[in-house]
Amino acid sequence: MNVKTNDTRQHILEVGYELIVTKGFTSVGLSELLKTANVPKGSFYHYFKSKEHFGESLIQDYFTHYLVNIAELFENPAKTGYQSLIEYFERWLDVDNGSCNANKCLVVKLSAEVSDLSEPMRLALRNGADKIITAIAQCIDKGIADGSIKVKDSDKAAHQIYYVWVGASLLNKLYQDQSGLKQCLDNTKLLLKGQ
Amino acid sequence: MNVKTNDTRQHILEVGYELIVTKGFTSVGLSELLKTANVPKGSFYHYFKSKEHFGESLIQDYFTHYLVNIAELFENPAKTGYQSLIEYFERWLDVDNGSCNANKCLVVKLSAEVSDLSEPMRLALRNGADKIITAIAQCIDKGIADGSIKVKDSDKAAHQIYYVWVGASLLNKLYQDQSGLKQCLDNTKLLLKGQ
Repeated sequence: MNVKTNDTRQHILEVGYELIVTKGFTSVGLSELLKTANVPKGSFYHYFKSKEHFGESLIQDYFTHYLVNIAELFENPAKTGYQSLIEYFERWLDVDNGSCNANKCLVVKLSAEVSDLSEPMRLALRNGADKIITAIAQCIDKGIADGSIKVKDSDKAAHQIYYVWVGASLLNKLYQDQSGLKQCLDNTKLLLKGQ
Repeated sequence: MNVKTNDTRQHILEVGYELIVTKGFTSVGLSELLKTANVPKGSFYHYFKSKEHFGESLIQDYFTHYLVNIAELFENPAKTGYQSLIEYFERWLDVDNGSCNANKCLVVKLSAEVSDLSEPMRLALRNGADKIITAIAQCIDKGIADGSIKVKDSDKAAHQIYYVWVGASLLNKLYQDQSGLKQCLDNTKLLLKGQ
Protein backbone atom coordinates (compact mmCIF):
# COMPACT_ATOMS: atom_id res chain seq x y z
CA MET A 1 0.00 0.00 0.00
CA ASN A 2 1.53 3.33 -0.99
CA VAL A 3 1.57 6.44 1.15
CA LYS A 4 -1.13 8.29 -0.77
CA THR A 5 -3.56 5.34 -0.41
CA ASN A 6 -2.95 5.15 3.31
CA ASP A 7 -3.39 8.90 3.59
CA THR A 8 -6.85 8.81 2.01
CA ARG A 9 -8.05 6.01 4.29
CA GLN A 10 -6.64 7.82 7.34
CA HIS A 11 -8.18 11.11 6.19
CA ILE A 12 -11.65 9.49 5.94
CA LEU A 13 -11.20 7.95 9.42
CA GLU A 14 -10.15 11.26 10.98
CA VAL A 15 -12.97 13.28 9.40
CA GLY A 16 -15.41 10.51 10.38
CA TYR A 17 -14.18 10.52 13.97
CA GLU A 18 -14.73 14.29 14.34
CA LEU A 19 -18.28 13.97 12.97
CA ILE A 20 -19.24 10.82 14.90
CA VAL A 21 -17.78 11.79 18.29
CA THR A 22 -20.18 14.76 18.24
CA LYS A 23 -23.24 13.53 16.32
CA GLY A 24 -23.15 9.79 16.97
CA PHE A 25 -22.97 6.96 14.43
CA THR A 26 -26.55 6.74 13.13
CA SER A 27 -26.96 10.51 12.68
CA VAL A 28 -23.98 10.84 10.36
CA GLY A 29 -25.01 9.85 6.84
CA LEU A 30 -22.55 8.59 4.25
CA SER A 31 -23.20 11.59 1.98
CA GLU A 32 -22.36 14.02 4.83
CA LEU A 33 -19.15 12.11 5.53
CA LEU A 34 -18.10 12.08 1.86
CA LYS A 35 -18.89 15.78 1.47
CA THR A 36 -16.98 16.79 4.64
CA ALA A 37 -14.00 14.59 3.76
CA ASN A 38 -14.21 15.71 0.12
CA VAL A 39 -13.76 12.19 -1.27
CA PRO A 40 -15.87 10.36 -3.88
CA LYS A 41 -18.08 7.41 -2.92
CA GLY A 42 -15.87 4.99 -4.89
CA SER A 43 -12.91 5.95 -2.75
CA PHE A 44 -14.86 5.20 0.45
CA TYR A 45 -15.89 1.75 -0.80
CA HIS A 46 -12.30 1.04 -1.87
CA TYR A 47 -11.33 1.05 1.82
CA PHE A 48 -14.55 0.08 3.61
CA LYS A 49 -17.05 -2.64 2.70
CA SER A 50 -19.95 -0.82 4.37
CA LYS A 51 -20.77 1.98 6.83
CA GLU A 52 -20.59 -0.62 9.61
CA HIS A 53 -17.12 -1.74 8.49
CA PHE A 54 -16.12 1.94 8.45
CA GLY A 55 -17.47 2.32 12.03
CA GLU A 56 -15.52 -0.72 13.18
CA SER A 57 -12.31 0.56 11.54
CA LEU A 58 -12.86 4.01 13.06
CA ILE A 59 -13.12 2.53 16.57
CA GLN A 60 -10.01 0.35 16.03
CA ASP A 61 -8.03 3.33 14.71
CA TYR A 62 -9.18 5.48 17.66
CA PHE A 63 -7.96 2.94 20.23
CA THR A 64 -4.65 2.35 18.41
CA HIS A 65 -3.76 6.02 18.86
CA TYR A 66 -5.29 6.25 22.34
CA LEU A 67 -3.29 3.26 23.61
CA VAL A 68 -0.01 4.57 22.16
CA ASN A 69 -0.64 7.85 24.01
CA ILE A 70 -1.37 6.26 27.36
CA ALA A 71 1.50 3.73 27.04
CA GLU A 72 3.85 6.68 26.60
CA LEU A 73 2.46 8.27 29.75
CA PHE A 74 2.10 5.14 31.89
CA GLU A 75 5.53 3.72 31.02
CA ASN A 76 7.43 6.97 31.49
CA PRO A 77 10.22 6.03 33.94
CA ALA A 78 10.52 9.66 35.13
CA LYS A 79 7.02 9.49 36.69
CA THR A 80 5.67 7.38 39.53
CA GLY A 81 2.60 5.22 38.91
CA TYR A 82 0.51 7.72 40.86
CA GLN A 83 1.80 10.71 38.87
CA SER A 84 1.16 8.92 35.57
CA LEU A 85 -2.42 7.99 36.50
CA ILE A 86 -3.31 11.42 37.84
CA GLU A 87 -1.93 13.03 34.68
CA TYR A 88 -4.11 10.64 32.63
CA PHE A 89 -7.23 11.58 34.55
CA GLU A 90 -6.38 15.27 34.41
CA ARG A 91 -6.51 14.88 30.63
CA TRP A 92 -10.17 13.78 30.93
CA LEU A 93 -10.86 17.23 32.31
CA ASP A 94 -8.83 19.05 29.70
CA VAL A 95 -11.14 20.04 26.86
CA ASP A 96 -8.19 20.90 24.59
CA ASN A 97 -6.53 17.56 25.04
CA GLY A 98 -7.72 15.46 22.10
CA SER A 99 -8.93 11.90 22.32
CA CYS A 100 -8.57 11.40 26.10
CA ASN A 101 -10.99 14.07 27.28
CA ALA A 102 -14.57 13.33 28.31
CA ASN A 103 -16.14 14.90 25.22
CA LYS A 104 -13.85 13.13 22.77
CA CYS A 105 -14.17 9.60 24.16
CA LEU A 106 -15.74 7.06 21.81
CA VAL A 107 -16.52 4.64 24.67
CA VAL A 108 -18.73 7.32 26.26
CA LYS A 109 -20.23 8.48 22.97
CA LEU A 110 -20.91 5.18 21.19
CA SER A 111 -21.29 2.33 23.71
CA ALA A 112 -25.03 2.78 24.31
CA GLU A 113 -25.83 3.57 20.69
CA VAL A 114 -23.94 0.85 18.85
CA SER A 115 -24.05 -2.08 21.29
CA ASP A 116 -27.61 -2.93 20.31
CA LEU A 117 -26.94 -2.09 16.65
CA SER A 118 -23.73 -3.78 15.50
CA GLU A 119 -21.77 -6.75 16.85
CA PRO A 120 -18.46 -5.83 15.12
CA MET A 121 -18.64 -2.28 16.53
CA ARG A 122 -19.59 -3.54 20.00
CA LEU A 123 -16.64 -5.94 19.99
CA ALA A 124 -14.22 -3.26 18.78
CA LEU A 125 -15.35 -0.96 21.62
CA ARG A 126 -15.16 -3.76 24.19
CA ASN A 127 -11.69 -4.75 23.05
CA GLY A 128 -10.53 -1.13 23.36
CA ALA A 129 -12.12 -0.59 26.79
CA ASP A 130 -10.52 -3.86 27.97
CA LYS A 131 -7.07 -2.66 26.93
CA ILE A 132 -7.53 0.70 28.68
CA ILE A 133 -8.59 -1.04 31.92
CA THR A 134 -5.59 -3.40 31.65
CA ALA A 135 -3.25 -0.44 31.11
CA ILE A 136 -4.72 1.33 34.18
CA ALA A 137 -4.28 -1.84 36.27
CA GLN A 138 -0.63 -2.15 35.13
CA CYS A 139 0.00 1.48 36.02
CA ILE A 140 -1.52 0.85 39.47
CA ASP A 141 0.90 -2.10 39.81
CA LYS A 142 3.76 0.22 38.85
CA GLY A 143 2.59 2.62 41.59
CA ILE A 144 2.34 -0.18 44.16
CA ALA A 145 5.91 -1.24 43.26
CA ASP A 146 7.33 2.31 43.52
CA GLY A 147 5.39 3.02 46.74
CA SER A 148 3.25 5.85 45.32
CA ILE A 149 -0.05 3.89 45.33
CA LYS A 150 -1.74 1.95 48.13
CA VAL A 151 -4.34 -0.38 46.62
CA LYS A 152 -5.01 -4.04 47.46
CA ASP A 153 -6.34 -5.36 44.15
CA SER A 154 -5.12 -3.43 41.09
CA ASP A 155 -7.51 -5.16 38.69
CA LYS A 156 -10.62 -4.43 40.76
CA ALA A 157 -9.48 -0.87 41.42
CA ALA A 158 -8.84 -0.27 37.70
CA HIS A 159 -12.35 -1.46 36.80
CA GLN A 160 -13.99 0.63 39.51
CA ILE A 161 -12.03 3.76 38.57
CA TYR A 162 -12.79 3.33 34.87
CA TYR A 163 -16.53 2.83 35.54
CA VAL A 164 -16.78 5.99 37.60
CA TRP A 165 -14.92 8.09 35.02
CA VAL A 166 -17.06 6.74 32.16
CA GLY A 167 -20.24 7.36 34.19
CA ALA A 168 -19.20 10.88 35.16
CA SER A 169 -18.27 11.62 31.54
CA LEU A 170 -21.66 10.42 30.34
CA LEU A 171 -23.42 12.63 32.91
CA ASN A 172 -21.05 15.48 32.00
CA LYS A 173 -22.81 15.44 28.62
CA LEU A 174 -26.10 16.12 30.40
CA TYR A 175 -24.77 18.68 32.88
CA GLN A 176 -22.25 20.39 30.59
CA ASP A 177 -20.06 21.38 33.48
CA GLN A 178 -16.89 19.82 34.87
CA SER A 179 -17.92 19.49 38.53
CA GLY A 180 -18.64 15.74 38.35
CA LEU A 181 -15.30 15.03 36.71
CA LYS A 182 -13.49 17.20 39.27
CA GLN A 183 -15.14 15.22 42.07
CA CYS A 184 -13.97 12.00 40.38
CA LEU A 185 -10.41 13.30 40.27
CA ASP A 186 -10.49 14.03 44.02
CA ASN A 187 -11.95 10.59 44.77
CA THR A 188 -9.48 8.82 42.50
CA LYS A 189 -6.59 10.50 44.37
CA LEU A 190 -8.01 9.29 47.70
CA LEU A 191 -8.60 5.77 46.37
CA LEU A 192 -5.06 5.46 44.98
CA LYS A 193 -3.65 6.65 48.30
CA GLY A 194 -5.68 3.94 50.09
CA GLN A 195 -7.87 6.46 51.92
CA MET B 1 -59.00 15.30 28.73
CA ASN B 2 -60.98 12.07 28.70
CA VAL B 3 -59.64 8.66 29.63
CA LYS B 4 -59.45 7.33 26.08
CA THR B 5 -57.39 10.32 24.95
CA ASN B 6 -54.97 9.88 27.82
CA ASP B 7 -54.75 6.19 27.04
CA THR B 8 -53.70 6.78 23.44
CA ARG B 9 -50.97 9.25 24.44
CA GLN B 10 -49.72 6.86 27.13
CA HIS B 11 -49.83 3.93 24.69
CA ILE B 12 -47.64 5.83 22.18
CA LEU B 13 -45.20 6.74 24.99
CA GLU B 14 -44.96 3.15 26.22
CA VAL B 15 -44.46 1.64 22.76
CA GLY B 16 -41.94 4.41 22.00
CA TYR B 17 -40.04 3.68 25.21
CA GLU B 18 -39.68 -0.03 24.40
CA LEU B 19 -38.36 0.78 20.90
CA ILE B 20 -36.04 3.63 21.94
CA VAL B 21 -34.51 2.01 25.02
CA THR B 22 -33.21 -0.73 22.67
CA LYS B 23 -32.57 1.03 19.37
CA GLY B 24 -31.84 4.61 20.45
CA PHE B 25 -33.66 7.79 19.46
CA THR B 26 -32.30 8.49 15.97
CA SER B 27 -32.65 4.91 14.75
CA VAL B 28 -36.39 4.74 15.47
CA GLY B 29 -38.28 6.39 12.63
CA LEU B 30 -41.73 7.87 13.05
CA SER B 31 -43.24 5.35 10.62
CA GLU B 32 -41.82 2.42 12.65
CA LEU B 33 -43.26 3.92 15.83
CA LEU B 34 -46.71 4.48 14.30
CA LYS B 35 -46.75 0.98 12.83
CA THR B 36 -45.70 -0.68 16.10
CA ALA B 37 -48.15 1.38 18.17
CA ASN B 38 -50.85 0.90 15.51
CA VAL B 39 -51.91 4.57 15.54
CA PRO B 40 -52.36 6.96 12.60
CA LYS B 41 -49.96 9.87 12.04
CA GLY B 42 -52.69 12.41 12.87
CA SER B 43 -53.09 10.87 16.29
CA PHE B 44 -49.36 11.22 16.98
CA TYR B 45 -49.38 14.90 16.00
CA HIS B 46 -52.46 15.49 18.13
CA TYR B 47 -50.31 14.79 21.21
CA PHE B 48 -46.80 15.69 20.08
CA LYS B 49 -45.63 18.72 18.09
CA SER B 50 -42.63 16.87 16.66
CA LYS B 51 -40.46 13.79 17.13
CA GLU B 52 -38.27 15.87 19.47
CA HIS B 53 -41.30 16.86 21.57
CA PHE B 54 -42.26 13.19 21.69
CA GLY B 55 -38.71 12.33 22.86
CA GLU B 56 -38.87 14.98 25.58
CA SER B 57 -42.30 13.73 26.74
CA LEU B 58 -41.06 10.13 26.71
CA ILE B 59 -38.14 11.02 29.00
CA GLN B 60 -40.40 13.00 31.36
CA ASP B 61 -42.91 10.15 31.52
CA TYR B 62 -40.11 7.64 32.17
CA PHE B 63 -38.78 9.61 35.14
CA THR B 64 -42.24 10.22 36.58
CA HIS B 65 -42.77 6.47 36.92
CA TYR B 66 -39.18 5.80 37.94
CA LEU B 67 -39.28 8.36 40.75
CA VAL B 68 -42.60 7.05 42.08
CA ASN B 69 -41.06 3.56 42.23
CA ILE B 70 -37.94 4.64 44.06
CA ALA B 71 -39.85 6.93 46.46
CA GLU B 72 -41.95 3.92 47.46
CA LEU B 73 -38.78 1.95 48.14
CA PHE B 74 -36.70 4.69 49.75
CA GLU B 75 -39.46 5.97 52.02
CA ASN B 76 -40.59 2.55 53.19
CA PRO B 77 -40.50 2.84 57.01
CA ALA B 78 -40.07 -0.93 57.36
CA LYS B 79 -36.60 -0.79 55.77
CA THR B 80 -33.41 0.93 56.90
CA GLY B 81 -31.73 3.40 54.56
CA TYR B 82 -29.08 0.77 53.81
CA GLN B 83 -31.66 -1.93 53.01
CA SER B 84 -33.59 0.43 50.72
CA LEU B 85 -30.48 1.46 48.78
CA ILE B 86 -29.15 -2.06 48.38
CA GLU B 87 -32.56 -3.22 47.13
CA TYR B 88 -32.52 -0.36 44.60
CA PHE B 89 -29.09 -1.35 43.30
CA GLU B 90 -30.03 -5.04 43.24
CA ARG B 91 -32.78 -3.99 40.81
CA TRP B 92 -30.09 -2.68 38.43
CA LEU B 93 -28.86 -6.27 38.20
CA ASP B 94 -32.30 -7.77 37.77
CA VAL B 95 -33.01 -8.09 34.06
CA ASP B 96 -36.69 -8.78 34.68
CA ASN B 97 -37.18 -5.71 36.80
CA GLY B 98 -38.48 -3.05 34.43
CA SER B 99 -37.23 0.51 34.23
CA CYS B 100 -34.59 0.34 36.99
CA ASN B 101 -32.33 -2.30 35.47
CA ALA B 102 -29.16 -1.46 33.53
CA ASN B 103 -30.59 -2.36 30.11
CA LYS B 104 -33.80 -0.38 30.60
CA CYS B 105 -32.27 2.88 31.83
CA LEU B 106 -32.82 5.89 29.58
CA VAL B 107 -29.98 7.85 31.21
CA VAL B 108 -27.55 5.13 30.11
CA LYS B 109 -29.14 4.65 26.69
CA LEU B 110 -29.79 8.24 25.61
CA SER B 111 -27.41 10.64 27.40
CA ALA B 112 -24.57 10.40 24.89
CA GLU B 113 -26.84 10.29 21.86
CA VAL B 114 -29.25 13.14 22.56
CA SER B 115 -27.10 15.60 24.53
CA ASP B 116 -25.46 16.89 21.36
CA LEU B 117 -28.72 16.60 19.39
CA SER B 118 -31.55 18.20 21.36
CA GLU B 119 -31.57 20.76 24.19
CA PRO B 120 -35.09 19.87 25.45
CA MET B 121 -34.20 16.17 25.61
CA ARG B 122 -30.85 16.89 27.30
CA LEU B 123 -32.60 19.03 29.93
CA ALA B 124 -35.30 16.41 30.53
CA LEU B 125 -32.60 13.76 31.11
CA ARG B 126 -30.57 16.09 33.34
CA ASN B 127 -33.61 16.98 35.40
CA GLY B 128 -34.41 13.27 35.87
CA ALA B 129 -30.83 12.29 36.76
CA ASP B 130 -30.74 15.19 39.26
CA LYS B 131 -33.85 13.91 40.99
CA ILE B 132 -32.49 10.35 41.18
CA ILE B 133 -29.22 11.59 42.73
CA THR B 134 -31.19 13.72 45.23
CA ALA B 135 -33.35 10.72 46.15
CA ILE B 136 -30.23 8.57 46.69
CA ALA B 137 -28.69 11.31 48.89
CA GLN B 138 -31.90 11.52 50.97
CA CYS B 139 -31.91 7.75 51.39
CA ILE B 140 -28.28 7.92 52.53
CA ASP B 141 -29.35 10.57 55.08
CA LYS B 142 -32.12 8.23 56.23
CA GLY B 143 -29.49 5.51 56.69
CA ILE B 144 -27.17 7.83 58.59
CA ALA B 145 -30.08 8.75 60.89
CA ASP B 146 -31.09 5.12 61.52
CA GLY B 147 -27.46 4.04 61.98
CA SER B 148 -27.36 1.65 59.01
CA ILE B 149 -25.06 3.83 56.84
CA LYS B 150 -21.69 5.39 57.68
CA VAL B 151 -20.94 8.13 55.15
CA LYS B 152 -19.60 11.64 55.79
CA ASP B 153 -21.12 13.60 52.92
CA SER B 154 -24.37 12.13 51.56
CA ASP B 155 -24.50 14.41 48.53
CA LYS B 156 -20.96 13.59 47.38
CA ALA B 157 -21.49 9.88 48.06
CA ALA B 158 -24.76 9.87 46.08
CA HIS B 159 -23.07 11.47 43.07
CA GLN B 160 -20.11 9.09 43.20
CA ILE B 161 -22.34 6.02 43.56
CA TYR B 162 -24.60 7.11 40.70
CA TYR B 163 -21.62 7.79 38.39
CA VAL B 164 -20.15 4.35 39.00
CA TRP B 165 -23.49 2.59 38.39
CA VAL B 166 -24.13 4.54 35.20
CA GLY B 167 -20.58 3.85 33.99
CA ALA B 168 -20.80 0.15 34.80
CA SER B 169 -24.21 -0.04 33.07
CA LEU B 170 -22.80 1.60 29.96
CA LEU B 171 -19.89 -0.86 29.90
CA ASN B 172 -22.34 -3.68 30.62
CA LYS B 173 -23.73 -2.95 27.15
CA LEU B 174 -20.29 -3.66 25.70
CA TYR B 175 -19.49 -6.69 27.84
CA GLN B 176 -22.97 -8.20 27.99
CA ASP B 177 -22.31 -9.81 31.32
CA GLN B 178 -23.18 -8.76 34.85
CA SER B 179 -19.73 -8.97 36.44
CA GLY B 180 -19.11 -5.20 36.41
CA LEU B 181 -22.48 -4.50 38.03
CA LYS B 182 -21.88 -7.19 40.65
CA GLN B 183 -18.55 -5.59 41.50
CA CYS B 184 -20.35 -2.24 41.84
CA LEU B 185 -22.84 -3.77 44.25
CA ASP B 186 -20.01 -5.11 46.45
CA ASN B 187 -18.23 -1.75 46.39
CA THR B 188 -21.43 0.18 47.14
CA LYS B 189 -22.02 -1.99 50.20
CA LEU B 190 -18.49 -1.27 51.45
CA LEU B 191 -18.83 2.46 50.73
CA LEU B 192 -22.16 2.73 52.59
CA LYS B 193 -20.67 0.89 55.55
CA GLY B 194 -17.80 3.42 55.63
CA GLN B 195 -15.17 0.79 54.73
